[in-house]
Amino acid sequence: MATSSGHTIKAFDEDLDRLRALISEMGGLAEHAIRESMRCLVQHDLDGAAKIVEDDKKLDALEIETERRAVQLIALRAPMAADLRDVVAAMKISSVVERIGDYAKNISKRVPLLVDRDIEPVSLMPEMAKIATQMVHDVLNAFVERDAETAIRVIERDKAVDDFYNSIFRTLLTYMMENPNNIGQSAHLLFIAKNVERVGDHATNIAEMVYYAATGEHITDRPKGADDMMVEQA
Amino acid sequence: MATSSGHTIKAFDEDLDRLRALISEMGGLAEHAIRESMRCLVQHDLDGAAKIVEDDKKLDALEIETERRAVQLIALRAPMAADLRDVVAAMKISSVVERIGDYAKNISKRVPLLVDRDIEPVSLMPEMAKIATQMVHDVLNAFVERDAETAIRVIERDKAVDDFYNSIFRTLLTYMMENPNNIGQSAHLLFIAKNVERVGDHATNIAEMVYYAATGEHITDRPKGADDMMVEQA
Repeated sequence: MATSSGHTIKAFDEDLDRLRALISEMGGLAEHAIRESMRCLVQHDLDGAAKIVEDDKKLDALEIETERRAVQLIALRAPMAADLRDVVAAMKISSVVERIGDYAKNISKRVPLLVDRDIEPVSLMPEMAKIATQMVHDVLNAFVERDAETAIRVIERDKAVDDFYNSIFRTLLTYMMENPNNIGQSAHLLFIAKNVERVGDHATNIAEMVYYAATGEHITDRPKGADDMMVEQA
Repeated sequence: MATSSGHTIKAFDEDLDRLRALISEMGGLAEHAIRESMRCLVQHDLDGAAKIVEDDKKLDALEIETERRAVQLIALRAPMAADLRDVVAAMKISSVVERIGDYAKNISKRVPLLVDRDIEPVSLMPEMAKIATQMVHDVLNAFVERDAETAIRVIERDKAVDDFYNSIFRTLLTYMMENPNNIGQSAHLLFIAKNVERVGDHATNIAEMVYYAATGEHITDRPKGADDMMVEQA
């Protein structure tokens, strides 16, 4: 079988599989970075935190590689319809995964600033991160499998991350009121919590891209905006 | 003159000009949204803030339109080298400008929550935003003009935004310590300040894309990472 541009479908599929493999590789690195950032936060592991910052360069390089291959694929094979949606989705998803890596990096940069870890929200943070990274994991699998249904279910789970974040936000405010001397520490934790909450938003964002790539239709009236950075109402 | 794919250079240039015009339009909307969000913050204009949130949909639509045209242009005309860099840059820049709009939207969503505006940092915020939006304005002009030198100068100005942000961050922490009852309000202002600081980062990010599109080389050893969300050291 040949496409209209004369290339075999097999060659296109192999190119696309290579793109999907790059996305999976990026996803694995980003999930690991978020999990590690939480471990470094809880254990105050400064060396580990520095390594996360250093390792983020791999994600940056993989994003550039994904973009390069995607653009080359579009220019050489001029894919149409579902094929084109897949390639564009790969390019956009790699950019979002790279940003998830940035959140891990930014959390890690705050680790050395947090000397007081006897704050309740510090122990809650990894739990919130676990939900968010699982969303990232599942939505990237959904992309590889072209599974629109799983993408929808990932979006539904973002509410759990938001609820978690709101709870941590309120707890931190209370902690700040009770311990004015630790307001600086708590401010860093506010930003860390927000970063983790944003990982869930980005998983939602990817889910919308996966849904569109798989179905050709946009998800409308979804429960929660992916770019809704403001969820707390304190 | 004809390109290797048989299309006239004129047709490609017209397509590219249309892409540049879309980027300029998006830039104008994003700059306006940030400025307006500051005005609504200072004047506690709830209707104005709601309008910014509503108007953000235009930016979302323009980003989709830019991406559609860019992908079409790559598939139909298979541009090479500098032409391809320009098209890919347009697509990526539109995505960053859309995110800048999201920051305006998220600042606006916090406006109704800020009932107490007699806080010094509230009056400083628009000044910081002015520098950041001017960076966005100048870097998008640099893209239209393919002006790598201006792009570099934009990056240098991000330090002023960061310094401003650090000052506001410290002031807010002091304010929180002195007025524990206003910690909730101050927490929202912390996030607003961070959003404005991120606008400067995104302008820097665009500047790197403009530089690469214009020169084919990546800026190395730049003064400050565009994804460096953590700049304060409190």
